[in-house]
Amino acid sequence: MSSEQTILSSVEFQMSLLLFVALAGYLIAYRINQSAVVGIILAGIVVGPSLLGLVTYTDFVSSLGHLGATVLLFTIGLEFRIKDISNIKYFIIALVGIVVPWAGGFALAGAFGFPYRTSVFIGTALTATSIAITANVLREMGKLQTETGRAIIGAAVIDDVLALLALTVAEELVSGSLSPGLVLVAGGKAVGFLVVGALAGWLVLGKAMTGMDRTRLAQRFPESIFIFAMMAAFLYAMAAELVGLSAIVGAFLAGVSLAGVKLRHGHVFKEGAEYLQIIFASIFFISLGVLLDFHVITPDLLLFVAVLTVVAGLTKIVGCGLPARLLGTGTKDSLVVGLGMMPRGEVAMIVALIGLTQNLIPQSIYAALVLMSLVTTIIPPLILRNWWKGGK
Amino acid sequence: MSSEQTILSSVEFQMSLLLFVALAGYLIAYRINQSAVVGIILAGIVVGPSLLGLVTYTDFVSSLGHLGATVLLFTIGLEFRIKDISNIKYFIIALVGIVVPWAGGFALAGAFGFPYRTSVFIGTALTATSIAITANVLREMGKLQTETGRAIIGAAVIDDVLALLALTVAEELVSGSLSPGLVLVAGGKAVGFLVVGALAGWLVLGKAMTGMDRTRLAQRFPESIFIFAMMAAFLYAMAAELVGLSAIVGAFLAGVSLAGVKLRHGHVFKEGAEYLQIIFASIFFISLGVLLDFHVITPDLLLFVAVLTVVAGLTKIVGCGLPARLLGTGTKDSLVVGLGMMPRGEVAMIVALIGLTQNLIPQSIYAALVLMSLVTTIIPPLILRNWWKGGK
Repeated sequence: MSSEQTILSSVEFQMSLLLFVALAGYLIAYRINQSAVVGIILAGIVVGPSLLGLVTYTDFVSSLGHLGATVLLFTIGLEFRIKDISNIKYFIIALVGIVVPWAGGFALAGAFGFPYRTSVFIGTALTATSIAITANVLREMGKLQTETGRAIIGAAVIDDVLALLALTVAEELVSGSLSPGLVLVAGGKAVGFLVVGALAGWLVLGKAMTGMDRTRLAQRFPESIFIFAMMAAFLYAMAAELVGLSAIVGAFLAGVSLAGVKLRHGHVFKEGAEYLQIIFASIFFISLGVLLDFHVITPDLLLFVAVLTVVAGLTKIVGCGLPARLLGTGTKDSLVVGLGMMPRGEVAMIVALIGLTQNLIPQSIYAALVLMSLVTTIIPPLILRNWWKGGK
Repeated sequence: MSSEQTILSSVEFQMSLLLFVALAGYLIAYRINQSAVVGIILAGIVVGPSLLGLVTYTDFVSSLGHLGATVLLFTIGLEFRIKDISNIKYFIIALVGIVVPWAGGFALAGAFGFPYRTSVFIGTALTATSIAITANVLREMGKLQTETGRAIIGAAVIDDVLALLALTVAEELVSGSLSPGLVLVAGGKAVGFLVVGALAGWLVLGKAMTGMDRTRLAQRFPESIFIFAMMAAFLYAMAAELVGLSAIVGAFLAGVSLAGVKLRHGHVFKEGAEYLQIIFASIFFISLGVLLDFHVITPDLLLFVAVLTVVAGLTKIVGCGLPARLLGTGTKDSLVVGLGMMPRGEVAMIVALIGLTQNLIPQSIYAALVLMSLVTTIIPPLILRNWWKGGK
């Protein structure tokens, strides 16, 4: 019963538009024979402010995108056990994969004449890998459970913790208040979250699900198991945010905690999460495309963006691929690990946003970081699909 | 990476809170042996402004509730064919079921000394049945496909069209600009939408789905069928809003149009819609509870609310049950039809909101209408579950 003026802001219109864009993304992916992720991000760029201007990054798009990223990482977590990803090798890959991009970004920014504070922040924005993208590509290719797939996911989770520390250090470096105490606190909170979250998942969450599964409530309303599981996913996501990690790391941990739980109504929540993910992860990928606006990129900036993107790519390939090779992974698989760790996705965009709002970087550098993030996100799936699949 | 101050407004926190409330609703429903709808609305009242004040009717809650109502009616539509619900008998039930409550409300308001304009609006707010509630209860009871279930759903859809006309007439009556032309235009648009929508569903939507189902796109990405179906649901919902019907009537029509389509990947979109509905219809029912604030009900108003609710209930039972009985339905089933048409749900709340924003009714009458709507929504499921089930 709303009037025609408000129809464009209605939930119904926005949902049909977003799903139309997602569908177009699938079509693009199919035509160029790439993963759905790439197709949908490209469709997002087309309808976003860069080209058509049909979809903007509204609260609605941002909320549903958030929801999608959470559900996506939860479903990916469901395919892992904790022992699959806790491995000293992955820790080393993650650590070197943080240090090398940071140093590369810092040095590059210095070479382009940016001040110290800005350079610190540019280095920091290069550190964090976005698990969401690579994990989804690996899943589409059926490679999640390979040794290399596990290495990428394990290292990416650890990477998120380390990148958080890097951000904390950077903020303190530029504000001149760096103290080992603060870094320790931030690190302790993050590691504590992972340990407590994993333990609580095992001892509390899993048991609660198993207990609930046997009640008559679950027998009469099997869907309540699904609601319970999704509630756990969002609770974990919130807890991760509270300690300063990205929400999606929490959702992933919730998924991992529930992965091994054997339930009568277990298929209900796994299938359900999968279907939620189909709709909302699409919206998340669209939102990544919409976040980009080509117009802020001036010709002067283009050289910097190009070099920054190359540095961001190479430093992850070297920083993650080299340790993997030295620790006994084959040459091709080491390259795959490096490529898989390359996408910066929404994580670098969040860091860039923090820098912008705290006046540490100007608008132009913000745009450069977003563009770098997008290109590093789109390229690895393109290469992995055509080259990794072909080989072996 | 957000700070602790903003965590309460984060998507993650809100989603986990809402799903927790939904779960509590299931538990209530189980304990009092009622339908999940009733349990979840009650849980919504408890956490809403009436009691705990934990959840308010924010844009986020309202958007997701909207989304839930759309998906709910789409999934219900999937269980019907057009011939199941287009029946002259249902039309007569709907028509009498509009006229009697309107007259009852108008007379009651007059007896309480309310001015003419207000009385017209109170009558109008009593006209529309909310399909969402009854349909879900019928489905939980496995009674959707009984003769009585079909009569309720068919009459409720027609009722929505007629109630729209009643609202148009009321707005023109009180503004003194009533013209047969305007009423005809509104009615023509609504009926036109149903006819064109049903034809387009049969000729275009169904064929497009069947065609897409056979492509290699659907083979490689079966989930694209699900996205396509949901897009159709939201498109239909938007079109219904454009002609002035409630969005959910459009979603229902989309579901009906796709109900008979035979697809290779058909299970994908039916299951998917079902799972979406589990999460988001719960949020819709919570939002109904949250909309109510007991505090605006003064003791003076209480008598009016009580009488209004009784009138709202009886006029639907008589207005729908009597024609059903006269047209050959058994006595008990006629009562079931009347009870099934009683819930006013969100439809009366929307009418009340229009009256409030156009200064046709004061805040107190608005509250009275919302409360009436809520009570008429909660009572029929209570009776139907215990009494209809018990019999036969």
